[in-house]
Amino acid sequence: MENFNFYSPTYFAFGKDRERDCGDLVKKFGGNRVLIHYGGGSAIRSGLIDRVKDSLNKAGIAFIELGGVMPNPRSGLVYEGIDLCRKEKVDFVLAVGGGSVIDSAKAIAAGSIYEGDFWDFYQGKFIEKALPIGTILTIAAAGSEGSGDSVITNENGMIKRGATGDGIRPKFSILNPELTASLPAYQTACGITDIIAHLYERYLTNSKDVEVTDRLIESLILTMKIEGKKVMEDLKNYQARANIMWAGMVAHNNIVGVGRSQDWASHDIEHELSALYDCAHGAGLAVTMPAVFTYNCSHDIMRFAQIAVRVWGCQMDFANPEKTAREGIEALRSFLISIGMPGNFEELGAKEEDIEKLAHTCCHGNGNKSGKIGGFVSLEQKDVEAIYRLML
Amino acid sequence: MENFNFYSPTYFAFGKDRERDCGDLVKKFGGNRVLIHYGGGSAIRSGLIDRVKDSLNKAGIAFIELGGVMPNPRSGLVYEGIDLCRKEKVDFVLAVGGGSVIDSAKAIAAGSIYEGDFWDFYQGKFIEKALPIGTILTIAAAGSEGSGDSVITNENGMIKRGATGDGIRPKFSILNPELTASLPAYQTACGITDIIAHLYERYLTNSKDVEVTDRLIESLILTMKIEGKKVMEDLKNYQARANIMWAGMVAHNNIVGVGRSQDWASHDIEHELSALYDCAHGAGLAVTMPAVFTYNCSHDIMRFAQIAVRVWGCQMDFANPEKTAREGIEALRSFLISIGMPGNFEELGAKEEDIEKLAHTCCHGNGNKSGKIGGFVSLEQKDVEAIYRLML
Repeated sequence: MENFNFYSPTYFAFGKDRERDCGDLVKKFGGNRVLIHYGGGSAIRSGLIDRVKDSLNKAGIAFIELGGVMPNPRSGLVYEGIDLCRKEKVDFVLAVGGGSVIDSAKAIAAGSIYEGDFWDFYQGKFIEKALPIGTILTIAAAGSEGSGDSVITNENGMIKRGATGDGIRPKFSILNPELTASLPAYQTACGITDIIAHLYERYLTNSKDVEVTDRLIESLILTMKIEGKKVMEDLKNYQARANIMWAGMVAHNNIVGVGRSQDWASHDIEHELSALYDCAHGAGLAVTMPAVFTYNCSHDIMRFAQIAVRVWGCQMDFANPEKTAREGIEALRSFLISIGMPGNFEELGAKEEDIEKLAHTCCHGNGNKSGKIGGFVSLEQKDVEAIYRLML
Repeated sequence: MENFNFYSPTYFAFGKDRERDCGDLVKKFGGNRVLIHYGGGSAIRSGLIDRVKDSLNKAGIAFIELGGVMPNPRSGLVYEGIDLCRKEKVDFVLAVGGGSVIDSAKAIAAGSIYEGDFWDFYQGKFIEKALPIGTILTIAAAGSEGSGDSVITNENGMIKRGATGDGIRPKFSILNPELTASLPAYQTACGITDIIAHLYERYLTNSKDVEVTDRLIESLILTMKIEGKKVMEDLKNYQARANIMWAGMVAHNNIVGVGRSQDWASHDIEHELSALYDCAHGAGLAVTMPAVFTYNCSHDIMRFAQIAVRVWGCQMDFANPEKTAREGIEALRSFLISIGMPGNFEELGAKEEDIEKLAHTCCHGNGNKSGKIGGFVSLEQKDVEAIYRLML
């Protein structure tokens, strides 16, 4: 285990009807004038936004609204939100939605009290301070409800970048599994895949002696495998939704990723797919992960064999551990396909002729000066091209 | 899963030499005049207190000291600490030690800014506010470094009681596994046992559909089994100490215990043993846990069979699950004996003739008006007597 810092100060209010507590929670964390930030019309149509307003009214808290966040949230709406917050003297940003809404709210909260351009934070400046943020989560996937991260796409060049800082960790997050029950099967499966990816990215490490975090990550992937299957069989299964929702937070607030190097190659490689073909992030990860792991398997056969045995229930082949390792990767692939995720480039809408361009942008675009990606295995453009070819 | 709140705002600084950051961390969290609180002379003799003072000096922070905390920390020293903090206008309490020192520091921090008697908090008043607290942990066991709890013994009647509240959650906790390397084998094993007990108390639940927390708890007990064995074979094994130290925090800040009923019968039954015979809490738990679990096994055979298979490596006897369940309890008992813990009343220094008195105090003393203990199985005095008899 390596030295580390861990800080996750968010107050989590979990369970049925908890959105009704949002007025009291905003008050508890010092908010008086709130910006309610949300996405499309589903939060309005479902009555969620009305319940939120009702709770704020009961607590005597003033509010204004800004809807319209899209998946892969954009800088334009962030600038609009910042102007609105300044003009209306907003002192608290309340995100009602999934990861995109929360990430957009984080950008607005940081930008509102910063004299420069908020985009500075997405070019590497650590976010020390922001307006306080609360979230009401409606999709279990991105883990933004418990993280100090935000990803925004700058419309000037369509550049997608991440920012980080303790200043944008939510003061509170309300996790009501019922709010995720109306998600269609495909988006539910995308969320499951995203959570599993957050766990694999942490599992694939070169750090030694990381028993406690290895075991914790395995327990969460096991949970996703079991509860993911349950929820796909019955999308209204509250208990399966609840287990997935808590697992999604624990998977990404980094309590299970501390003290170890991490990978994140699958996220980097997927990112180019969703940027170019506008596919869902989870769907892209479902195709990317098995390819990356197949390519990297020989780097640490015993690590892949370990997860194959402990999580995927494979029998250890002591005469041929690599066989077990690869069986585990195939078991992951089968699981993802079984919940309705795509299995290859074609199903994703990606094209073979774009591979060179995809690999080039992945390794040389987005301000990447090293020309390499991956914390587990260092991958150059030719490696990334080979990985994309494994997805055909 | 049941509705819950979870809040663990402590900043954790983990790893080698991290105590040298304590001056910066006190400053970060607003401290200017610090009370350094510690136990016996070992923290001085090891040079730890000097390193702490050096770090505070470098950060320009004034400090005073109060040592002398004993295991099962007492109210007398708490009153002394409160007087000192008020007189010297202390604005930050820094605990350097194990759970007893941290619990004593929490009591001082809460009492210093409270107009009434600090003991009110230990009679049920929730601790909303306290002076900010930092900890430098030297024993992996109690989990107080990440919890909002404190246990103090009132010398007026020798009453041992717990207090709780978000106000006493540490602002930061420094976890340097090297600081635990000088602990003798017996105390190390007591700490391992205490951490395992914190996990079993949460595992034994009547809540349904708790896959995610079940799996997380199992992963931590597995870690303790594997890393506990390693550290007992080599007390200086840094990596085993590190895995145990992080597991001990995660086991007790309740991230793995949310949304489910918990037991705590073993702690209540053990408490009478350490109170009467002054044995170590961990040693008492090693004798108590197998007896409680044996007595309660038939309440939920499948739960005990599950942990037997998943954690203790037992083969499931599908024709006779109770056999598997009881095998798991015996495996726990064998493990605890293998690390040097006592296995029965005699080895603990406890006496058969005290059983009735012990059970009476357990069920009717300490302000317990219900006459019952246990969240998993409700136990009356006659049950507790029978459990003590299983320890003979």
